[in-house]
Formats: sequence, C-alpha cells, structure tokens
Amino acid sequence: MEIKVIKDIMGANDQIARKNRQLFDSNKVFVVNVMASPGAGKTSVIMETIKRLRGKTGVGVVEGDISSSLDAEAISKEDVPVVQINTGGECHLDANMTAIALGDLPLKDIDLLLIENVGNLVCPAEFALGENIKVLIASTPEGDDKPFKYPLMFHEADAVLINKVDLLPYLKFDVDAFARTIQGINREVKIFPVSCTTGEGIEEWVSWLLGRMGEK
Amino acid sequence: MEIKVIKDIMGANDQIARKNRQLFDSNKVFVVNVMASPGAGKTSVIMETIKRLRGKTGVGVVEGDISSSLDAEAISKEDVPVVQINTGGECHLDANMTAIALGDLPLKDIDLLLIENVGNLVCPAEFALGENIKVLIASTPEGDDKPFKYPLMFHEADAVLINKVDLLPYLKFDVDAFARTIQGINREVKIFPVSCTTGEGIEEWVSWLLGRMGEK
Repeated sequence: MEIKVIKDIMGANDQIARKNRQLFDSNKVFVVNVMASPGAGKTSVIMETIKRLRGKTGVGVVEGDISSSLDAEAISKEDVPVVQINTGGECHLDANMTAIALGDLPLKDIDLLLIENVGNLVCPAEFALGENIKVLIASTPEGDDKPFKYPLMFHEADAVLINKVDLLPYLKFDVDAFARTIQGINREVKIFPVSCTTGEGIEEWVSWLLGRMGEK
Repeated sequence: MEIKVIKDIMGANDQIARKNRQLFDSNKVFVVNVMASPGAGKTSVIMETIKRLRGKTGVGVVEGDISSSLDAEAISKEDVPVVQINTGGECHLDANMTAIALGDLPLKDIDLLLIENVGNLVCPAEFALGENIKVLIASTPEGDDKPFKYPLMFHEADAVLINKVDLLPYLKFDVDAFARTIQGINREVKIFPVSCTTGEGIEEWVSWLLGRMGEK
C-alpha cells in the first residue's frame, strides 16, 4: 500500500519532469541541476559561473531552499533573473515545484538555467526536474570518503566539482583517491578541482559547460 | 490519501521510539542522537568523546549510513561495542531501524549510547529514535547562514557543536553571529565551539554531557 503511493509520486514526478524538459527544449534553454551537501558552495559556484558568462550567455537561476531567500538575494545582485522556491520542509526540489517556478522566468532570454537544489546528498538525486545534466559540488572539508556513503548522488552526476581546494593545505583530503573512488562509481563523470575563493579551476568548468551546451 | 499514509508512518515511528526509550531507561542507558551535514565531523566527535570517557563511562555506538561500514570500522578500533545500520537509500534513521540494532548491543554494559544519524540536515530531525537528547554538529566550512536554511534541525537540538574551529583563520565565519542566530531559533540550546583536530572545546562538551547524564 505504501509502496504503491511512493510509486505514484515518482511516476507523477517523471511525467512533470518530461513536460518541463519539453518547455526548456522549445525555448532552447540548457538546464543544470546543481546538488551538494549544505555549505559545499553551490551558490558560490553559481555566482562564479554567472561572472564568467556575463555578456556571452543569458543565465537564469532557480534557488531551492527549505526556508529563507538569502541565496536568491545574493544572486539577484549579479543582475540575472532568479526565482526562489521555499520547499517548506521538503528535503529536495521536485518537478512540480520547478514547473511552478518557470512561470516567473523569462525563458526566451535564458540560454542556461542553473537550478540550485536543497542542500542534501541523498534525496535530490531521486527526483528529476527536467534538467539536461546534474552537477555535484563536493567540498574538501567534507572528507574524501563521501562517495562510499552517498553512492547514488555520485552515480547520477555528469560532473563533480571538488570545491574549496584552497583549504587542502589544512585538511586530510586526497584529491587523487577521491577522484578514483568517484570514477569507480561513475566511469563517465567529469571531475573539476575548483576554488571559488581563488578562482582556480572555474575557467575549465565553465568551458566544459559551454561545450555541453553546444552539443545539445 | 497520501497524507494519511504519512501520518501513519510518523505515528508508528513515535510508538516504536517510546518502546526504545523504555528499554533504554530500564537498562539505565543515556542516548544521544548525533546529527549533521555529511562531513561535518560526527564520527570524529564520537571518537573524541569515547577517548575522554574511557575507563569512566561505558560507551556504545550505533552508526547510521546509507551504505558502507567505514565509520563502524573506525569506531571499533576504540574498543567499544558498535553496530552499523545501512539504511539502503533512506536519508535518515528511524525508530524501527534503531530497535533492530539494539538487539546486537550489550545494553547492560552501556551507560551512554551515541547514535550517529545519516549525514543530512533535514530529514533526521523529524524522526525520534527514543533518544534523551539531540546533538547537532555544525562545521565552520559550511558557513554561518545554515540556521536560516535548516531551521527545524537547529530548533530541535539540545546542543550544537561548532566543529572545525581550527579552520576559522581561513574562512569567513562569524562564530558570534552564528551563535546568536541559533539562539534566536532555540533559546535553550547549549553551544560548544570545538575542534577534533586540536581538541579545543571537547572537554567542555564532555563535561556538559556527563552533567546531563547525571540529571537523568
């Protein structure tokens, strides 16, 4: 009985995600679902990405949080269209929340839509939003054992950004071992060591992202 | 219909949590539900706590993870009874998983049971396990805005450990502002700045914990 309800929820979500994707495609919008633990640097990566693309690519942002609009306020200073979703307790975004947010975005002016999911390494991986790619931000202070503990998230990601590499001198974190573990779970994944503080690696990530948008 | 199912799940969980609590009380076991984001330092805090209590207090540990037994293996080196729960995808521990784990623990030899929940700032706050207190580990690299974004977790905590204070020189993190925000959500909470690397603050935390055990 319970399983039936859960299947209905997932089936309904996938159906709405497909409709979102059709709307994105018809408006030529490339969509990235940005996921991470709380505080790994999702908003910082989004802001650095916006800065590198200014004047070249129309960027829009959807900010997902349980409560508050802090991130949307920060993003709006970058002068791009942004919509805040407050899930009111839900630990992930779903396709329906995304569909509602799209009504408030000028899709015709947007080439790249960055959707910042709720900070959570578990549940967001299970809910499609209609995105083209999923990107996982993993930060060095979280430790290099996370792929063993949250395998689905690492399995689903098209790219993993290893953020806060500027803190490596003060941490026990083996970048090579971490990358090897991720590749063991997900052979196709692209990995970028980055720092939003020093700017290291951001150019490589943005250049790869533009490549993926061009392939579409 | 869906709401009915969810209510049933929460009601059933609370009922099992009450039974767990009776079992703990009858065995004179004080139970701490340890929650945090992935990589905030739950296992490190547990290991430092075990070291400070060695020879004084019988400690047992339950390790909750979606997959892997890395943390239980680390804890078992401290020579305390430990049971690993793999939730197999679930983003939190619940009372029933806890009840099953208890069958493998020598409760009569345990004064303090530390239950490490799944790394997640959202869902674990909603599921009682039968614990006496809830402790939240918040680490400095996650940023000082987390109470605004995950208010339920900060509201439910009896104590917040601000971990990784040794990294403060390299981060933008205002400890006083963070503490004030937490106290705005939760007036009764006890806050301990700590570092499992340098040992700072661990004594104060353990001393408070022993006090709470004594009050019981």
